[in-house]
Amino acid sequence: MLKPFAPRLHEMMKEVLMSPEAPGPKIHYYMIRGGEVKTNITVWETGTVGGEYIKTYGHYHVGQLDETYYLAAGEGIVILQKRKEDADGNPVDDEIEVFYAIPVKPGDSVFIPSGMGHLVVNTGKAWMVTYDDSPVNFEEVDPVSLPGHADYEAVKKMRGFAYYVVEKNGKPELVKNENYKAVPEPQWLTPAEYAQLTN
Amino acid sequence: MLKPFAPRLHEMMKEVLMSPEAPGPKIHYYMIRGGEVKTNITVWETGTVGGEYIKTYGHYHVGQLDETYYLAAGEGIVILQKRKEDADGNPVDDEIEVFYAIPVKPGDSVFIPSGMGHLVVNTGKAWMVTYDDSPVNFEEVDPVSLPGHADYEAVKKMRGFAYYVVEKNGKPELVKNENYKAVPEPQWLTPAEYAQLTN
Repeated sequence: MLKPFAPRLHEMMKEVLMSPEAPGPKIHYYMIRGGEVKTNITVWETGTVGGEYIKTYGHYHVGQLDETYYLAAGEGIVILQKRKEDADGNPVDDEIEVFYAIPVKPGDSVFIPSGMGHLVVNTGKAWMVTYDDSPVNFEEVDPVSLPGHADYEAVKKMRGFAYYVVEKNGKPELVKNENYKAVPEPQWLTPAEYAQLTN
Repeated sequence: MLKPFAPRLHEMMKEVLMSPEAPGPKIHYYMIRGGEVKTNITVWETGTVGGEYIKTYGHYHVGQLDETYYLAAGEGIVILQKRKEDADGNPVDDEIEVFYAIPVKPGDSVFIPSGMGHLVVNTGKAWMVTYDDSPVNFEEVDPVSLPGHADYEAVKKMRGFAYYVVEKNGKPELVKNENYKAVPEPQWLTPAEYAQLTN
């Protein structure tokens, strides 16, 4: 029997938190995977850890793989970042070319092209839920928690994305991650504005 | 630390399936509870068990408690039934007064007044997700899987609701549960038609 469910534990999230030593919930988010047709469900905890909103770990895709995230319940911010490339066309993990912050509400969707690092932050008072159409290979060792199409190492090395999403006076604010060598100004976009950019 | 997550296992679902001996998935649905503000998330498996679509167990509320279910992802049918009352005003478990079947899609919501038994069926090819605003008392013995406000015994005794939702030629059809003594004709309603009835 395939096991489609996995929780993402605080222990692993410490690798990418702004404040790894701050107390947090045991489980940051729940993953229930099904693949392209059945979709993949993610459910985020509420609240903050050391001021930073609960988020997914964040990853880049390995190889050519785009996907679309749909916000099903709650409210949050989709965070996207693209690495610079060196002369050989290889991504440079500590230099970011573009950084988008896209607030989303139920009914919104965000297309994530190949090469675009992504995570989602829960800024609401309720569980946030997304579904996405990423493929799943249940033959893998850990297809739900650590799918083979996802590169977590580049994010782990940098201790998260180029900006952390932090609560300030009840509102989300971006705080720069000083581990990066080059970081652009963040661009706040609506889902519609972002869709126009990528078309 | 509160544990907000619980799976509903096939073993327990056998009590209310049309065909308890048919093979089914180990987990029929996943519950992540948070209460009135944080909401409660439910995620349904896809497919059928002995022809019957994957469903929640179904229950009546104990005491005065209404709630609203919101469909967040996927597609399904909200099933509602109301028991007749005896001369003393006590519900009669094997006699049903009204039976509603309400197909829902993302964005739809269904208000469930006190006394109305309810379950939801997943008729789509993807995980179905709802959120609801039922209160949770985490002081209870088993607040997530078996909350104190829910009466499962009346449903267990009857082996499910008055009709089972069964796949026939790829479409949902209602099949009468012969354990009930009195069952009305089912009423198929849109969420809007149902809302008008309850106003």
